[in-house]
Amino acid sequence: MKDIPYKIYLNEDEMPKAWYNLRADMKNKPAPLLNPGTLKPMKPEELSPVFCEELIRQELDNETPYFRIPDEILDFYRMYRPSPLVRAYCLEKALDTPAKIYYKFEGNNTSGSHKLNSAIAQAYYAKKQGLKGVTTETGAGQWGTALSMACSYLGLDCRVYMVKVSYEQKPFRREVMRTYGASVTPSPSMTTEVGKRILAAHPGTTGSLGCAISEAVEAATTTEGYRYVLGSVLNQVLLHQSIIGLETEAALKKYDIHPDIIIGCAGGGSNLGGLIAPFMRDKIKGLEDYRIIAVEPQSCPSFTRGKYAYDFCDTGMVCPLAKMYTLGSSFIPAPNHAGGLRYHGMSSTLSQLYDDGLMEAVAVPQTKVFEAAEFFARTEGILPAPESSHAIRVAVDEAVKCRETGEEKTIVFGLTGTGYFDMVAYEKFHDGKMDDYVPTDEELSVSFSKLPSVSV
Amino acid sequence: MKDIPYKIYLNEDEMPKAWYNLRADMKNKPAPLLNPGTLKPMKPEELSPVFCEELIRQELDNETPYFRIPDEILDFYRMYRPSPLVRAYCLEKALDTPAKIYYKFEGNNTSGSHKLNSAIAQAYYAKKQGLKGVTTETGAGQWGTALSMACSYLGLDCRVYMVKVSYEQKPFRREVMRTYGASVTPSPSMTTEVGKRILAAHPGTTGSLGCAISEAVEAATTTEGYRYVLGSVLNQVLLHQSIIGLETEAALKKYDIHPDIIIGCAGGGSNLGGLIAPFMRDKIKGLEDYRIIAVEPQSCPSFTRGKYAYDFCDTGMVCPLAKMYTLGSSFIPAPNHAGGLRYHGMSSTLSQLYDDGLMEAVAVPQTKVFEAAEFFARTEGILPAPESSHAIRVAVDEAVKCRETGEEKTIVFGLTGTGYFDMVAYEKFHDGKMDDYVPTDEELSVSFSKLPSVSV
Repeated sequence: MKDIPYKIYLNEDEMPKAWYNLRADMKNKPAPLLNPGTLKPMKPEELSPVFCEELIRQELDNETPYFRIPDEILDFYRMYRPSPLVRAYCLEKALDTPAKIYYKFEGNNTSGSHKLNSAIAQAYYAKKQGLKGVTTETGAGQWGTALSMACSYLGLDCRVYMVKVSYEQKPFRREVMRTYGASVTPSPSMTTEVGKRILAAHPGTTGSLGCAISEAVEAATTTEGYRYVLGSVLNQVLLHQSIIGLETEAALKKYDIHPDIIIGCAGGGSNLGGLIAPFMRDKIKGLEDYRIIAVEPQSCPSFTRGKYAYDFCDTGMVCPLAKMYTLGSSFIPAPNHAGGLRYHGMSSTLSQLYDDGLMEAVAVPQTKVFEAAEFFARTEGILPAPESSHAIRVAVDEAVKCRETGEEKTIVFGLTGTGYFDMVAYEKFHDGKMDDYVPTDEELSVSFSKLPSVSV
Repeated sequence: MKDIPYKIYLNEDEMPKAWYNLRADMKNKPAPLLNPGTLKPMKPEELSPVFCEELIRQELDNETPYFRIPDEILDFYRMYRPSPLVRAYCLEKALDTPAKIYYKFEGNNTSGSHKLNSAIAQAYYAKKQGLKGVTTETGAGQWGTALSMACSYLGLDCRVYMVKVSYEQKPFRREVMRTYGASVTPSPSMTTEVGKRILAAHPGTTGSLGCAISEAVEAATTTEGYRYVLGSVLNQVLLHQSIIGLETEAALKKYDIHPDIIIGCAGGGSNLGGLIAPFMRDKIKGLEDYRIIAVEPQSCPSFTRGKYAYDFCDTGMVCPLAKMYTLGSSFIPAPNHAGGLRYHGMSSTLSQLYDDGLMEAVAVPQTKVFEAAEFFARTEGILPAPESSHAIRVAVDEAVKCRETGEEKTIVFGLTGTGYFDMVAYEKFHDGKMDDYVPTDEELSVSFSKLPSVSV
């Protein structure tokens, strides 16, 4: 085996030129989006008031395995990609583990996370369609920042609905988006009908991604020349994020490295779906037998405690129905610090793969996540985002198991971003004021009882 | 000429293995540090209560051109180095300039700046000497963060005195340092004799680097097993930071690129001195005729309005005297946002080079710096630190001149760090609340009048 450097960088000419569509190779395709009125699969023309044309095509295409990345997007990617695949030598040493740990680090860009990979694609197609602007939601602020950057680059207007708890906990995120010329509204707000309705039903709510999605969709469909874009959950987003997995695959192959375990944090599924795409392809084809692990917060455990059912993507129930592992669209998670992972549902694609037994899922408590985050910061020198630290937690746990068994497993995990704007959460952790909220069975059964009744 | 990628990365085996000591090639050496009592050059044994032994050796050595980088430091460097040399294609396009612009980006590490290059070196030598810990000052927080990271990695205690205005404007910086286990005290404080004296003389002062240095030095010299470390100004720091220039030189040579203009921001001089080191060597030797430009804030214009004289390095006058361009150690800059550039003096090495006519200096107003910062963020996708944005400002100005003259000059500048913790300053800029403070001649003549009387 060749000597492995600390950071494996692909050359720009080794960068993937196409996104990979995992759905093309899935034996059981993800269930289609349904029109909530007719309960029939959504047709492109029904989606076009909300989404851009090309993105609808990508969303609904379960057959085409590769989509060429337009040159303009490749140019933008070259500003911050390829991202490094890092060999965690220091972490391995600190853990005294025979495991070999790698992480794909997506935080080396101003948005601070992998979200930029899809933001530039979605903004590009909106611009190409001649739109004036886009609306969106953001939870922890990573997606909103990424979209603001992409829109600024392309000269598109950008309107962001930001989950209220994040808006308050991350005052500087707003200022970054403003630097890129975006407008930011805390959600739920009184600027939309659905926002007013949610505020009336839940006065004092700290918001959720589901609420913010409803508001952003309403704003897009009621404003001329605007469409809605979403940073996770959707098939199109996983398609764009496949760049993460494809680069990881190429970097591993460059040094003849064979992974045993692949780990990613899972909120809506964009990072995880992108990271695992080519590995899952080989697993589906029977070529490989990787362990693939989704890590979610115990406070918002869609995979591990959710139901696999048709549900609304948003709290306001204005979006199509998607079949997914869900806690129920009426579930509003406690305002703890899982940040971008506070979404009630999960990508349909990942939900199907999980249901097919092709991947595992683990739910971890918040304080254990921050313990891993701080340990990682001190050993590897990168201050991780709380979201990413869910994956760190399980990577560390797996590496410790290797220490106990003596197995030299190769672990790859996704380090989706940096925690520069999460210092309020770190502060709570340092001060011992962080709690490990876990929803009760009773809470979940209430939100399950509100799932739409769909028999397919 | 070969096709130039967006980002030029050296391979790890192309990384420099030694620091370059520019003093060895200077015809006029920088003036020695003087003992403030005897006005004789400081001897190693006089410095040893304050500094580590090996660092004193590096500080005083004007002859040895290269210092081998210890393997342990090289290992740490590999966690975040080599840093990319980026071709600013998007900026060039936005400026419609025939100039070719490159920037050496040092912000891709958790400390967010180039400061880590010297922090790990200084912490390493402290550890090697068997010390318990180190004390330091930090202005904008970059140095303190970097040192906290390095100390955490090596298991050293770290005590940081942070300029009060930054402590208040950058609440999350403190939390990052805490994540790395450091203690942080706003300066001036009541924890030191010199702090009490400064507070008595200037009640309500927002502090300065000069004050914080005095406090940190006192804390080091009065605590068993501690030494003081400094993030800029000193010869040893410029030595460590030469890694920036050496990597830049190697990356340029790899693609046969010949720079015409090299630009860096200048506070104490660590980044500028590191960036220009190998280029200045060739200029001194008559091999090249680069234009080398130092950019400083108009609010703290050491080069452009200071005197070249012996002065105290610190406001409390507890440190040795250094000959440098200085505004006078009693000069306390207005609490505007030049952040890490708010230091009354300038590296002795750079001061000598400037006095010898080997480099130029430009002072720029604050709002023009933030205009350039925002423009850069929107085109290049990196949110720059205010300090770094001084260099951006002048790089943009030079590129615009090229547009007017049609010259295809190659401009290289140092992008020292990111602005994630500077959003309060960005907010003031967005809200039109940023002022362009410039000290009056009267203010400067008051502080000049307090310069120590030294005839050498």
